[in-house]
Amino acid sequence: MTMYLPAHFAETNDEEIAAILADAPLAALVAVTDEGLVANHIPLLAEGADTLIGHVALANDLHRLVPDGASVLAIFRRDDAYVTPNSYPTKAAHHRHVPTWNYQAVHVHGLITFQHDEKAKRRAVGMLTAWHERHLNGETAWRMADAPANYMATMLTNIVAFRIAITRVIAKSKLSQNREPIDHQGAVENLMSRGKAGIAAAMVKRRPRKTAP
Amino acid sequence: MTMYLPAHFAETNDEEIAAILADAPLAALVAVTDEGLVANHIPLLAEGADTLIGHVALANDLHRLVPDGASVLAIFRRDDAYVTPNSYPTKAAHHRHVPTWNYQAVHVHGLITFQHDEKAKRRAVGMLTAWHERHLNGETAWRMADAPANYMATMLTNIVAFRIAITRVIAKSKLSQNREPIDHQGAVENLMSRGKAGIAAAMVKRRPRKTAP
Repeated sequence: MTMYLPAHFAETNDEEIAAILADAPLAALVAVTDEGLVANHIPLLAEGADTLIGHVALANDLHRLVPDGASVLAIFRRDDAYVTPNSYPTKAAHHRHVPTWNYQAVHVHGLITFQHDEKAKRRAVGMLTAWHERHLNGETAWRMADAPANYMATMLTNIVAFRIAITRVIAKSKLSQNREPIDHQGAVENLMSRGKAGIAAAMVKRRPRKTAP
Repeated sequence: MTMYLPAHFAETNDEEIAAILADAPLAALVAVTDEGLVANHIPLLAEGADTLIGHVALANDLHRLVPDGASVLAIFRRDDAYVTPNSYPTKAAHHRHVPTWNYQAVHVHGLITFQHDEKAKRRAVGMLTAWHERHLNGETAWRMADAPANYMATMLTNIVAFRIAITRVIAKSKLSQNREPIDHQGAVENLMSRGKAGIAAAMVKRRPRKTAP
């Protein structure tokens, strides 16, 4: 197994997986090289269900260390939080609780191919920029065309684009859904009181279906 | 290079590195196995400057796939955010800006050793729990002794502890400190207005020292 994943924490909802990638697009992109494990933090964008696209600086050795077709792992992770046993109402009754950590993570395994041609680079930058600007700024979105053409051309010479052909997606939503409903709710309220609204909201969407034995 | 790290983004302040580990202790722990890249999300605790400690579920194959002494990479990352060119006041003057992403990351490379003895497991769990409970709950901290002894003994049989002997630490604070001061401030204000207080606070601590050329 490439990530420990008990069945009750497996995230199998494609919409939720897409939402995690959209909410936390800065992936930790990991590769194995002759120099050992290499990791870089790079915003990635899904293009359809089979591809991730991104770009790195030309000065980033990644595209020199990693050959086309090599396996890489892109790790996406949304909010996380420590969960204290104190937040479980049933603690007072039986004290059979230990701390844990809640989080949501998506691991995308795939084969990377670097792209050095100007057209591919402009496309990758354009798609990433359009996606983020549309979500953040809407009608006032910054566009590549806002910058002088010679400046943008220079910027493009300083990057390398890449595509990752997805071979496997493993996703985990560890959200206390294996707890008793009253304890799940207690953990949600504790996290809300600590300002951990993101993970609390994810937990509310994944309430326990029945009372644990 | 195991992470692309321009000199102006290198994080060399030991206190800041420690703060990142303390604020974002849920590491993505990456290892290379015969099955390929393996990653798990595990809260780690620094013990002194040379060691990280943690534990995994006994059911987690990590301790079976990765031999003692193997190289692993623990990736810690604090807040991150997309930075829009619209947030730079000088954009209106010359439009020579492109989007970027800000974040802080610490990569700890080291050699892992698993510990199956009850004493080591109790120590690892105790240290991690004490650290998190002290920070979160203070005088009302949950303690292992709060749980029934036989329950805790069973829980300990279900985990494996580990230590990582640190061989290398690489840290990056990508906080727009290479921007002109007025643009850095504009980005801080934009991020604050978007509720990105964490990354904005990190940026305020790392203001540009002089006007960029």
